[in-house]
Amino acid sequence: MNNRVLDPGLDVAELTARLIDIESVSGHETPIADAVEALLRPLDHLEVVRDGDAVMARTSTGAAERVVLAGHLDTVPLPATPGATGTVPSTLRDGMLHGRGATDMKGGVAVQLALAAAVTAPVRDVTWVFYDHEEVEASLSGLGRLVEHHRDWFDADFGILLEPTNGTVEGGCNGTARFEVRLQGTAAHSARAWMGHNAIHDAAEVLTRLRDHEPATVTVDGLDFRESLNAVRIAGGRAGNVIPDETVIEINYRFAPSRSLDQAEALVRDLLSGFDVVRTDGAAGARPGLDHPAAASFVAMVGAEPLPKYGWTDVARLSALGIPAINFGPGDALLAHTDDERVDPQAIRTCHAVLHRWLTQR
Amino acid sequence: MNNRVLDPGLDVAELTARLIDIESVSGHETPIADAVEALLRPLDHLEVVRDGDAVMARTSTGAAERVVLAGHLDTVPLPATPGATGTVPSTLRDGMLHGRGATDMKGGVAVQLALAAAVTAPVRDVTWVFYDHEEVEASLSGLGRLVEHHRDWFDADFGILLEPTNGTVEGGCNGTARFEVRLQGTAAHSARAWMGHNAIHDAAEVLTRLRDHEPATVTVDGLDFRESLNAVRIAGGRAGNVIPDETVIEINYRFAPSRSLDQAEALVRDLLSGFDVVRTDGAAGARPGLDHPAAASFVAMVGAEPLPKYGWTDVARLSALGIPAINFGPGDALLAHTDDERVDPQAIRTCHAVLHRWLTQR
Repeated sequence: MNNRVLDPGLDVAELTARLIDIESVSGHETPIADAVEALLRPLDHLEVVRDGDAVMARTSTGAAERVVLAGHLDTVPLPATPGATGTVPSTLRDGMLHGRGATDMKGGVAVQLALAAAVTAPVRDVTWVFYDHEEVEASLSGLGRLVEHHRDWFDADFGILLEPTNGTVEGGCNGTARFEVRLQGTAAHSARAWMGHNAIHDAAEVLTRLRDHEPATVTVDGLDFRESLNAVRIAGGRAGNVIPDETVIEINYRFAPSRSLDQAEALVRDLLSGFDVVRTDGAAGARPGLDHPAAASFVAMVGAEPLPKYGWTDVARLSALGIPAINFGPGDALLAHTDDERVDPQAIRTCHAVLHRWLTQR
Repeated sequence: MNNRVLDPGLDVAELTARLIDIESVSGHETPIADAVEALLRPLDHLEVVRDGDAVMARTSTGAAERVVLAGHLDTVPLPATPGATGTVPSTLRDGMLHGRGATDMKGGVAVQLALAAAVTAPVRDVTWVFYDHEEVEASLSGLGRLVEHHRDWFDADFGILLEPTNGTVEGGCNGTARFEVRLQGTAAHSARAWMGHNAIHDAAEVLTRLRDHEPATVTVDGLDFRESLNAVRIAGGRAGNVIPDETVIEINYRFAPSRSLDQAEALVRDLLSGFDVVRTDGAAGARPGLDHPAAASFVAMVGAEPLPKYGWTDVARLSALGIPAINFGPGDALLAHTDDERVDPQAIRTCHAVLHRWLTQR
C-alpha cells in the first residue's frame, strides 16, 4: 500500500488509506503535495496552480455560482506512544481505518480528489483547495498564503471545509482569543511575609471571577453557539521560601461569531477590570451563513439538522473574504489528534456520495 | 591575604577576612575545616574531634554549666553577577568588609575561633561546634550528623548559634512546614469547556482562603512570634487550547514555636478542609528559652531587648535536644546570600567583646 501514486478511480476509503501512507506532518507536506499535483495536473477540465506545498484546481464551466471546497494536507505529529494505531502507515482493524490523519482530515481530502477528477462538468463551478500548515500557528497557514497570492481564485459564493463533522453540517465557528493577566507582587523571605506582597494570593480574585462567569449561548443565524471562557494556564512563584512576586494567568475565550474580536476583548476586560489584561492572540469566528441559497440547498441535501461548530476552523478565513462557509466531512472530531485516530470507511463513502449529488444534480 | 593559616591572635575582623578568603561553598568545606582543625588541635585546654568536614572542641574545667557555641563553615554559592562584592576573596570598602560569608556567617566563626583559643578557663564549660552543610537540604546537615555521632558532646545547659542578628539576642525560631494542594480536573478542548472540569478555576477557593487567613502573632516565653502562611508556588495547565486537568499549589507555613509540627499541619488542613493537602516537609521551631538562668544572664549582658527569630535556624536542632538556644551574631541577616554581602568590622569586635565577658566574668 505504500504507494505514492494516487489513483482517483479507487474507492474513496482506499484512496484515504493511500493518503495516510504518505506521511505529511506539518512542515513536511512536499511528498503529499507532489502526489496531489500529479493526480490533478493531467486532468483537462481543471486549471491547476501550485504554491509551495499547496495545490489548487478549478473548473470554469461558466456556471452561475462558484463554490470553494477546501482541505488541509498536513497532520499533527505521529503519536509517541508505542502501539498507537493513529500512525503511519494506515491499518484496517475491525472495519475501521486507523492512521494519522484518518479523521483530520485525509478522508475529506480523498473525497475532494475523487470528485475533482470525476465531476468534469459540475452544476456549480468549483475551486478545489489542498493546503499546508493548518495544524500549526496561524501565521504559517497555507490557506492564508493562497488567499494572499491568488485572491481571484477565491471569488466564490459559498465554501465547504471538509473537516470532520461526522457527516453533519456544522455552520460557522466560534472565535477564539487568548489573554494574559500578569499580577505583580513584592518578593520577600517567606519567614517575613509581611515584608512582601503575595502575587499568587492576588490570583484568587481573578480566578473567582472566571469561575463565577456564566458563559453565554448566543443564537446566530438560527444556530446556538455556546461560549467558553477559561484560565488555561497559571504559573507563579520562585522558590519554596520566597513570597512570590509574579503570577501569570493565561485565558482562552471562545466567543460566538456574532461578536467581533474587539467586542470579545471588551467583555474580558470588563470582567477582569482592575487587572492588567493583555490580548496575546485572537481570531474572529464565522457566522454560519445558512441563509445563502447554495448553503440552504446543501443543508437540504444532507437532510440532517445543521449544528454549530465550536472549535475555530478555517471557515473563518473564508468568512472573512465574504464567503459563507460550513464544515462538512467524514469522521469524529473528538478522535482528531488522538493516539488511535480512525475513521469509518463507510462515512467517507457517504460524504462522497452527498457531495457528488450536490455537484451534479440539477 | 590569601593565607590558609589562621592565627587566632589576629583582630577578629581580620580573622573573618581570612576565613572568607578560604572559599567554602556547601560541599566544599574541606580546606576551611582543615584550617580550623589546625588552629584548634595544638591548644592544650581543648579536646578536639573531627567528623567529616566538621570540627568540635571542648573545655572540661568542671564548671557547673556547659554551653554550646556553634556556627557553620559553609556558604551559599558565589554570586554570578559580574562586579558583585559578596564574593571571594574579601575586600574592605568604605570601612565595610565585603565577601561571601561576611554576614552568614564567617564573622561569627571568627569570634568562636578567637574565644576558643583565648579563653582557656571559661566560667562555663564550652563545646565549640564548627560544621558543614548548613546552606543545603536539612538531611545533609553537619550539625545533625555531629549530634548523631557524638551525642555526649551535646549534654549542655544552653546554646548560642552565632548566626547574624545584628548583635541582638534573637530567641528561638518559628517552625516551617511545606504543603502541596493538588486539584484534579478533567481535560477537554477549550472550545468545548463543558466537556471538562477546570482545575485552575478550582484554585480560586484555595487561594481565597489563604488570602483571607489572618496570620497569628503568638507570644512564647515573652517574645512575639509573627506567623506567615503563603502559597509560594502555583502551576497548572497543559496547553493554550486545553481545559486544565491539574493545578498544584505549594504552601509554606511559618509557625510559632508553641505549635508542634502536627498542630501546624492540623491548622492548615482545617483551613483548607475539602481539599487534598499533603505535607511534604517540616521542622518544628524552637522556644526562646530565655527563662533559663544562663540565657537570662546572657541577655542581661547584651543589654538590648531580645527579639523573636522568624526564620528557621539550627537553634531548633539544639532545642530538640532539650538545649535552650538563642541566635546572637554580627551582621544583618537581610544581607545574607546577597550579591553584596558585607559586615561592619566593628560589629564583629562588639560581638566578640560581649561573649568574652560572658565566658570570663564571674
